[in-house]
Amino acid sequence: MTRHDGRTPDQLREVRITRNWLDHAEGSVLVEFGRTRVLCAASFTEGVPRWLKGKGTGWVTAEYEMLPRSTNTRSDRESRKGRVGGRTHEISRLVGRSLRAIIDTKALGENTIVIDCDVLQADGGTRTASVTGAYVALADAIADAKARGLLPASAAPLTGSVAAVSVGVVAGGAVLDLDYPEDSTAETDMNVVMTGDGRFVEVQGTAEGEPFDRALLGDLLDLATAGCAALTALQRAALEAPARERLR
Amino acid sequence: MTRHDGRTPDQLREVRITRNWLDHAEGSVLVEFGRTRVLCAASFTEGVPRWLKGKGTGWVTAEYEMLPRSTNTRSDRESRKGRVGGRTHEISRLVGRSLRAIIDTKALGENTIVIDCDVLQADGGTRTASVTGAYVALADAIADAKARGLLPASAAPLTGSVAAVSVGVVAGGAVLDLDYPEDSTAETDMNVVMTGDGRFVEVQGTAEGEPFDRALLGDLLDLATAGCAALTALQRAALEAPARERLR
Amino acid sequence: MTRHDGRTPDQLREVRITRNWLDHAEGSVLVEFGRTRVLCAASFTEGVPRWLKGKGTGWVTAEYEMLPRSTNTRSDRESRKGRVGGRTHEISRLVGRSLRAIIDTKALGENTIVIDCDVLQADGGTRTASVTGAYVALADAIADAKARGLLPASAAPLTGSVAAVSVGVVAGGAVLDLDYPEDSTAETDMNVVMTGDGRFVEVQGTAEGEPFDRALLGDLLDLATAGCAALTALQRAALEAPARERLR
Amino acid sequence: MTRHDGRTPDQLREVRITRNWLDHAEGSVLVEFGRTRVLCAASFTEGVPRWLKGKGTGWVTAEYEMLPRSTNTRSDRESRKGRVGGRTHEISRLVGRSLRAIIDTKALGENTIVIDCDVLQADGGTRTASVTGAYVALADAIADAKARGLLPASAAPLTGSVAAVSVGVVAGGAVLDLDYPEDSTAETDMNVVMTGDGRFVEVQGTAEGEPFDRALLGDLLDLATAGCAALTALQRAALEAPARERLR
Amino acid sequence: MTRHDGRTPDQLREVRITRNWLDHAEGSVLVEFGRTRVLCAASFTEGVPRWLKGKGTGWVTAEYEMLPRSTNTRSDRESRKGRVGGRTHEISRLVGRSLRAIIDTKALGENTIVIDCDVLQADGGTRTASVTGAYVALADAIADAKARGLLPASAAPLTGSVAAVSVGVVAGGAVLDLDYPEDSTAETDMNVVMTGDGRFVEVQGTAEGEPFDRALLGDLLDLATAGCAALTALQRAALEAPARERLR
Amino acid sequence: MTRHDGRTPDQLREVRITRNWLDHAEGSVLVEFGRTRVLCAASFTEGVPRWLKGKGTGWVTAEYEMLPRSTNTRSDRESRKGRVGGRTHEISRLVGRSLRAIIDTKALGENTIVIDCDVLQADGGTRTASVTGAYVALADAIADAKARGLLPASAAPLTGSVAAVSVGVVAGGAVLDLDYPEDSTAETDMNVVMTGDGRFVEVQGTAEGEPFDRALLGDLLDLATAGCAALTALQRAALEAPARERLR
Repeated sequence: MTRHDGRTPDQLREVRITRNWLDHAEGSVLVEFGRTRVLCAASFTEGVPRWLKGKGTGWVTAEYEMLPRSTNTRSDRESRKGRVGGRTHEISRLVGRSLRAIIDTKALGENTIVIDCDVLQADGGTRTASVTGAYVALADAIADAKARGLLPASAAPLTGSVAAVSVGVVAGGAVLDLDYPEDSTAETDMNVVMTGDGRFVEVQGTAEGEPFDRALLGDLLDLATAGCAALTALQRAALEAPARERLR
Repeated sequence: MTRHDGRTPDQLREVRITRNWLDHAEGSVLVEFGRTRVLCAASFTEGVPRWLKGKGTGWVTAEYEMLPRSTNTRSDRESRKGRVGGRTHEISRLVGRSLRAIIDTKALGENTIVIDCDVLQADGGTRTASVTGAYVALADAIADAKARGLLPASAAPLTGSVAAVSVGVVAGGAVLDLDYPEDSTAETDMNVVMTGDGRFVEVQGTAEGEPFDRALLGDLLDLATAGCAALTALQRAALEAPARERLR
Repeated sequence: MTRHDGRTPDQLREVRITRNWLDHAEGSVLVEFGRTRVLCAASFTEGVPRWLKGKGTGWVTAEYEMLPRSTNTRSDRESRKGRVGGRTHEISRLVGRSLRAIIDTKALGENTIVIDCDVLQADGGTRTASVTGAYVALADAIADAKARGLLPASAAPLTGSVAAVSVGVVAGGAVLDLDYPEDSTAETDMNVVMTGDGRFVEVQGTAEGEPFDRALLGDLLDLATAGCAALTALQRAALEAPARERLR
Repeated sequence: MTRHDGRTPDQLREVRITRNWLDHAEGSVLVEFGRTRVLCAASFTEGVPRWLKGKGTGWVTAEYEMLPRSTNTRSDRESRKGRVGGRTHEISRLVGRSLRAIIDTKALGENTIVIDCDVLQADGGTRTASVTGAYVALADAIADAKARGLLPASAAPLTGSVAAVSVGVVAGGAVLDLDYPEDSTAETDMNVVMTGDGRFVEVQGTAEGEPFDRALLGDLLDLATAGCAALTALQRAALEAPARERLR
Repeated sequence: MTRHDGRTPDQLREVRITRNWLDHAEGSVLVEFGRTRVLCAASFTEGVPRWLKGKGTGWVTAEYEMLPRSTNTRSDRESRKGRVGGRTHEISRLVGRSLRAIIDTKALGENTIVIDCDVLQADGGTRTASVTGAYVALADAIADAKARGLLPASAAPLTGSVAAVSVGVVAGGAVLDLDYPEDSTAETDMNVVMTGDGRFVEVQGTAEGEPFDRALLGDLLDLATAGCAALTALQRAALEAPARERLR
Repeated sequence: MTRHDGRTPDQLREVRITRNWLDHAEGSVLVEFGRTRVLCAASFTEGVPRWLKGKGTGWVTAEYEMLPRSTNTRSDRESRKGRVGGRTHEISRLVGRSLRAIIDTKALGENTIVIDCDVLQADGGTRTASVTGAYVALADAIADAKARGLLPASAAPLTGSVAAVSVGVVAGGAVLDLDYPEDSTAETDMNVVMTGDGRFVEVQGTAEGEPFDRALLGDLLDLATAGCAALTALQRAALEAPARERLR
């Protein structure tokens, strides 16, 4: 089987992770899955929301949004419409839950990290790119907080890493990391979030066309497991390489 | 293993499906999963939204909302807050997608069916009860449209049935159909939507505590498959029994 | 004169008051005036809104809303429209004022009771059914608070009872408790809220067609006085009968 | 009994009706009930809202709002809060209904008149002043439409006149036309809208303190009837006197 | 060159400043630039917004809004639309900045003055009339606060005066104080805010048609300088004349 | 005088203009003024808003927004707050007006171009960078429309070019192109938009501290004139250089 862009069914698009893309943010990553381009900015602030005060635990949350011309035809801004759409809420919640799965909020102390994932260009897989990039930005923000003495050097709020990838059934075959032309014609579409040690954080599968059976579900999970492992390696490499110096 | 209410791990709560609970709606169901009580009202209207006009296909969508005192402590109304929350959007979209999975929109003609799922009382599993009840209300609305000549007698817009159930890991063990005390302490929580012939429409699993592995995922899917089959039988029985006459 | 449903001009529809219809709410009533069906849930919480703090008095308020398919044709949800309509506000305020007329807020202490009146099915008279049912839910919530020790056994925050009914001029004659077909063709429409001892709390009369004179106003008030007395008796009977046990 | 400002119980405040206070509006009135000052502007436009198109009837509606510093202490603007409050909606609806009671919408043709009632200064009775002033602005807008040939000279869309006044029980006695100090301490408060020929359009009585009995209700209606008759005479005199020339 | 209303290019419209037009507001002015009529109400309150607390400085801000029928054809209310438009925000911010330019917030102590500028009738120049009238209302509110002992008699929060005027290029020539017919056809439009001692606070010039060159900019600034000087003299005269007594 | 970053008073920051930074947008530019980084995306669509239909003219408009972590400390999203702030509206309007100054809407035909200016990183001068980058994106979108045959090759909708720069008084001296540390301490702040042939489109000067006199205004305009000329040259160079190929 040949995919429209020449990839094999189990092949990721070219993935690039550029750290410290911004100067102000405590951690920031421009993550690219092919033409999909998401800017993930992690903001570390002391203190927690009111409902958490005095409990000795921190808070990690995320907000996802698309720029109006990230897509092929321009969409109206949600700020102008005066309401945030269901899809935007849904993905923001997904990214936040995924990050909290590898955070020890006790070890974070009463501090808050917000990760903003703004889609600069969309070509399928914006939510999985967001999770994958957000983890790296989060790791950098925690390192920055330690460097500035806002967290003790011994604190270990990260209990692991997290990455995400989409899988789906396109033209009858299971494929990894769908781009927009694939995504818009997929019969089944699944987003899988996994930890660096290969366990599941989120499995969200939807039959867009025909319902799917247990065997197909197994094939898709196999593809996703391999894809997340590859992304985990790319995250680790990015975090080990030297990053651009922030201009402060 | 004993559950706090005496059920076995693979046992559903008592499920009741009361058809024609309302007089105006073309189809309506009061569905109860134990103390969870959802009113599903299906409204059939001729015509489709603007973006579908002239394409010869129909539209099915759903809206989910909780009454302010459906929960243990009162929540503010979303109408008063002026914005619909992320969870409400997410569940509305899930119910709509689930129903569309078993609808042939061509066979529906240019007609719209909206299913309103209003939670009168919440005790866990409101989204799965909504999907399960909504299917029955949808079937009744279609029958009503045929009876009134709005759809030809030969039309078959329903390509199957759909039901949903939650599964999760509570106190280390996999269990079916979690009530609120179980749901709020579950380590993993999964909602599964299946067709009457045993295929998957939606699989949404989330690790609330520890990430889960492939074996546990398999156990949960087994439980869900059995649960959905039981719900499918209850739906069929409800649709075959005579229903209360609507007062028009 | 014959009414379209066979009632005499001074006859109420069949009224049913079902207490403890919900398990969570401190007081709850499903009230039915014929096909009109309103769920009234009273929520008792300790503390008062900020502007009342430290004054030693409690607060009682109400919120009214219609489910989208309570009506003959589906209406859009106010939560989705992002704004609460004028009619909804107006009725919420009416129900709240009516209940406060028979509440001694000093005797309530610094506690708040919110009564949610959600119309499950509408066939005329939803606001008068709401007031009538809300009173019973309020009485139950106060009894519950005493039983749980949140109010002293000797406290008497209720200074009386309150009930409401509509009257109007249909086809030239004055009638009691209009259903929707009558209401939509009435020349004059009046809602009257009265205490159990026969005094007026609210009188809201509107000439939909011809303005009305003083004699007709008198006839309508006579009908309403008798109707409220009958509703008062039904409320008392409901409160004296044993209620379903709440499952907590 | 003496009132705090020296009036007798059945005495109106000084009422002033200044026509053509604005230059652009087809009809405009600055109406003053003592220190209460409301600007009523009637806008005549050809055409009707979509839901009335092609029915050959016109539409009259009203919008009421208070300037932020019309009151003794400044209130936030509803435009900034992003939502229109319940009281504002309620009064807008009351004014609109009152005007429609004396309008023959057939005779108006497919034209719309919107009356904006903006409270410049509030000292009690803003809704009754609004109705009373709005009628005069409406009459002027209709005359203007005839003068400009937008309505045939023979058209008679006004079937009468309408005026409104408040009555209430203050310090145990029934009084007419309450100002703010009286209104804020009244036990019962009633707003009455009447036609020029002495019939009722709206009766809205509320027991703020003690519920009221039938005899007291009668006394209040007597006072209101006399008050509305006096206002009707003032409206007629204003409409017969020459008005300021509009600068166009 | 002749202007359509007979003025010379450097001539203001007739300007009227009526102090204490309202009874409740600490300072209030009805300012008229020809047919443009703006009601400016200054509200003095003790205390400051949260972000200024404890800094020993006061706060002055402004809100501008147009009544729906202030304009030639009726505009929808921003409160009903649920959002405040860009132009309204922009002018509110301009008026606030202009006033703060002549306020010593230290000398004001921890007090807040809000100036509401509501346009009752619009005929061009509503923002410049607002600034000019708001200054007088502000001065009166400060005097009132001293008279009531809320500010020490020796406090001097006003460091000068401020006035504003529009200039523009109409039919090829530079003119002062444009009315609506001029404004809507102007090639260049500039609003200038100046202190009483002839310095600039705001210069906002916009080429509506052709871009303008430096020489023309100079001519416009000359006109504006003379216009603001004339307005400053009118403000001073108004503040020195005896004002109507407020009825409290 | 030395500036904190070593520039001379009349020196721009390093300016970079990267064309075709996006693949979908008809024109797109990443514009950098030092650390300020704005993504300008021009969307060309056939047709015009309803109020322009059938007039044979096109429409150009702009929307400006800041990403939440573009600033030094994170700001809340306007989409989440449910309302667009005054500053955002003001700058959006400024950018739109600036572009329309050099557009012949007749020559554009009934087509719409929306330019989205999203601030990825803010360090002062975001509005002037937006205007400067937006012009280049607009020019590219027009060239693209010609290449695709949506505009005739002979059409010349651009009547010139437009660029913008800020000037201000910092530490007593007039300087060009303020960065954030300068901007936040400036006594006077002026934004100037000029055409490529050296004429003014917008002059917006504000005294943040002391009001300014005519001589200082002259100095600031001199600086801005030179700065805009330099930016015009950079725009021209960018448009003449070959651009990255878009991946479509």
